[in-house]
Amino acid sequence: MGKKLTSRSEDYSKWYNELVVLADLAENSAVRGCMVIKPYGYAIWEKMQAQLDQMFKATGHQNAYFPLFVPKSLFEAEEKNAEGFAKECAVVTHYRLQNDPDNPGKLRVDPEAKLEEELVVRPTSEAIIWSTYKGWIQSYRDLPILVNQWANVVRWEMRTRLFLRTAEFLWQEGHTAHETKSEALEETIQMTNVYSDFAEQFMAIPVIKGIKTASERFAGAEETYCIEALMQDGKALQAGTSHFLGQNFAKAFDVKFTTKEGKQDYVWATSWGVSTRLMGALVMTHSDDFGLVLPPKLAPIQVVIVPIYKGTEQLKEIDAVVHALVDSLKIKGISVKYDNRDTMRPGAKFAQYELQGVPLRLAIGPKDLENGTVEMARRDTLDKNVYPIEGIDLTIVTTLEAIQKNLYDKALDFRSQHTTEVDDFEEFKTILEEKTGFVSAHWDGTKETEAQIKVLTKATIRCIPLDSQSESGVCVLSGKPSARRVLFAKAY
Amino acid sequence: MGKKLTSRSEDYSKWYNELVVLADLAENSAVRGCMVIKPYGYAIWEKMQAQLDQMFKATGHQNAYFPLFVPKSLFEAEEKNAEGFAKECAVVTHYRLQNDPDNPGKLRVDPEAKLEEELVVRPTSEAIIWSTYKGWIQSYRDLPILVNQWANVVRWEMRTRLFLRTAEFLWQEGHTAHETKSEALEETIQMTNVYSDFAEQFMAIPVIKGIKTASERFAGAEETYCIEALMQDGKALQAGTSHFLGQNFAKAFDVKFTTKEGKQDYVWATSWGVSTRLMGALVMTHSDDFGLVLPPKLAPIQVVIVPIYKGTEQLKEIDAVVHALVDSLKIKGISVKYDNRDTMRPGAKFAQYELQGVPLRLAIGPKDLENGTVEMARRDTLDKNVYPIEGIDLTIVTTLEAIQKNLYDKALDFRSQHTTEVDDFEEFKTILEEKTGFVSAHWDGTKETEAQIKVLTKATIRCIPLDSQSESGVCVLSGKPSARRVLFAKAY
Repeated sequence: MGKKLTSRSEDYSKWYNELVVLADLAENSAVRGCMVIKPYGYAIWEKMQAQLDQMFKATGHQNAYFPLFVPKSLFEAEEKNAEGFAKECAVVTHYRLQNDPDNPGKLRVDPEAKLEEELVVRPTSEAIIWSTYKGWIQSYRDLPILVNQWANVVRWEMRTRLFLRTAEFLWQEGHTAHETKSEALEETIQMTNVYSDFAEQFMAIPVIKGIKTASERFAGAEETYCIEALMQDGKALQAGTSHFLGQNFAKAFDVKFTTKEGKQDYVWATSWGVSTRLMGALVMTHSDDFGLVLPPKLAPIQVVIVPIYKGTEQLKEIDAVVHALVDSLKIKGISVKYDNRDTMRPGAKFAQYELQGVPLRLAIGPKDLENGTVEMARRDTLDKNVYPIEGIDLTIVTTLEAIQKNLYDKALDFRSQHTTEVDDFEEFKTILEEKTGFVSAHWDGTKETEAQIKVLTKATIRCIPLDSQSESGVCVLSGKPSARRVLFAKAY
Repeated sequence: MGKKLTSRSEDYSKWYNELVVLADLAENSAVRGCMVIKPYGYAIWEKMQAQLDQMFKATGHQNAYFPLFVPKSLFEAEEKNAEGFAKECAVVTHYRLQNDPDNPGKLRVDPEAKLEEELVVRPTSEAIIWSTYKGWIQSYRDLPILVNQWANVVRWEMRTRLFLRTAEFLWQEGHTAHETKSEALEETIQMTNVYSDFAEQFMAIPVIKGIKTASERFAGAEETYCIEALMQDGKALQAGTSHFLGQNFAKAFDVKFTTKEGKQDYVWATSWGVSTRLMGALVMTHSDDFGLVLPPKLAPIQVVIVPIYKGTEQLKEIDAVVHALVDSLKIKGISVKYDNRDTMRPGAKFAQYELQGVPLRLAIGPKDLENGTVEMARRDTLDKNVYPIEGIDLTIVTTLEAIQKNLYDKALDFRSQHTTEVDDFEEFKTILEEKTGFVSAHWDGTKETEAQIKVLTKATIRCIPLDSQSESGVCVLSGKPSARRVLFAKAY
């Protein structure tokens, strides 16, 4: 510990950067833009993975694994996709190092070991996967293909931040192949819903489901669906995307199939992904000036128990009571840690678990032993109360549920308060600068207006919400007619 | 289907290559030496991962994630390690592509986007991890560090084979840091035991635990422990390694800690790993000329049920009986698939599941409905029997256990029959050529003799078995004195 966390009001960005490191989630590595995900941070990611993986399998998907490298000639086959990612590709050009004759003990790239064709480290896997699917698909009987991959990808970003934007990140990417356009569109929407359910029910983050404008679309997609979340500093964060790829990749890689009617047709595609960026969203949605606040469903440790004692005799008595409690909690599927280390004082332990966002902290001292009580502190509200130890396991179960709900409600409340309908461009600018958050406004549907608004305000169209009502109005900038409102915000 | 599998006796190597592809485990990709792991193959790997991960956590380890790339200057810090891997490193030299002015629509590496320092795609992660641990370790209180990583690694192999030797492969790598030599050695041995337990109890593969000779040691290790398995063609396969790294990496990266006594000392290290190579071992240990044979504990589908029917009326009746059975099996934690597709004949389904190694196949037809019976076929023995459907769930449970045991016993029996004590070099050569398998022989302990035996016979010392008895004898080649026998074999 030692180092004090900058407060959010002082410098939100600094608060985030410090918190990720102090809470032992991740740190920068010796490799430019690449992070080390530390065990505590990785344990949260594992919980996310396990839940998402279960949801993917429940919707009929299977996992597979495709190569890390994409030969340049495959990478460039789908032109828009290639163009979109070309500027941020790490490229392998050689396959061997050798002793450097000029620097004894040092190595250099062996100039003789140049690859005939350069290999791109995958920034996304459509190209390598569709070149593979070509071999898997002959007939409608081979469809649909419903495959997901958990993998690392590399996008050479110039300005990086832990979890939010890193050169290498971990993600999952679903790649599906279908007979018909409508089936592929259904899949695209289904996965948007899976992401939204996951964000809301597990991460306790309310999200807006919507469609991206053409200029914010995934390179190579016909339509990009997304879930958008709002962070505590009033900036939006794209938390997941699901792309309807049309027949673009099937055409680029010549993937045709024989239909039930015996005709040849190109296959329809989707792809969808979420990444370790979700870790950033999790931190920025719930945490406070004391440290992380984690929703119980994703907390690696849901309950920590700290003994308050003098001497080994007292500790022994507490140990006995706690061990029974730990057992009864484990049976209920609750992840509990009993921290009876004698190398750290209770106060320091309290500070550590507060910083690391453990949802519930129990403290048991000699008085509690006498009275048959235990002190329980909620991380989300910082409330402390004394409870009878008898029946505390049930209290813990209901309190964890209450915390999960409270975090969601608070975030939803924050978002409601920071979503503003605006019809005037001066007000539009003021709201974005002062109140921040989502601005719901009319837009004339042109990319020129969208670009101009971005130049003038730094805000982008986050999405056209799926549940937006048609409502005639005029564009907040151009005054031209508009049929519905869209959501603007400054974004991560 | 369609394509018939080459038999093992005809061409073992061809049999393996065909089987991996025909059983839908993996295939070669468009990237030289890199494979695509298909959903069925990946499902087996996921089962391996889940079990190993649980065993790692039960022994106190946590997962984390470190960068894919290693800057060249870090990579070369531990000289022996660097020397050992330099010749097979994929190297990233550039971070951007651009439109190729000479080839419209094509991309080329942007010569302006050359990295100041080349990045090696990790062939193993000691270097990047120990440069990270330097920041994590100040005092004995920071020790031990018990971390594992699930990741992809790249070793540029010239001759590749699916699962057995691929340029990119998936693995786990444990990297631990300790106060004392003895603690690090204990960890090294503990993980050797974890690997051996996993291989024997889950993969049904008997393994020999042993120590590698100096020339077969991991580059940068002081001692390499291993588990060695024997394949059906009499060749050995190294199935996992656990390295005692001494203070080599701590010295290379200057990782010191303050001891309990207040002194400064270098940290002691281990690393240990198993990879998708295990998939190759699994296939080659148990499978036969009809296809895969999978141990029930790792089979993605443990039981498949195929209806034999004419017309939808019969199918409906069978469906009803089967659905009840499926439910009762699922409750028992058994992975079961009911394949009532009407696009494939029962015979074709039988062939598919035989090829894919499903341990138990049930068939139910109209006669079975009348008699209250079901036909059950074991994949391992190819035995078929008719059982009363009443109580079949318990029969299935005990039969799956019997299959698991039978596979292990058969493999153990094969190994016993193919392990030969030899004291004469002519016999040594003959056994290796004709009988094949492990040869237990005396060796004088010199790398010269080891190298000469390899040249003369292609056999290497697989290990000095941990349970080998001291026994004085003379080296099978040089005639010089020897204190114990070691295990030779030709190997994958």
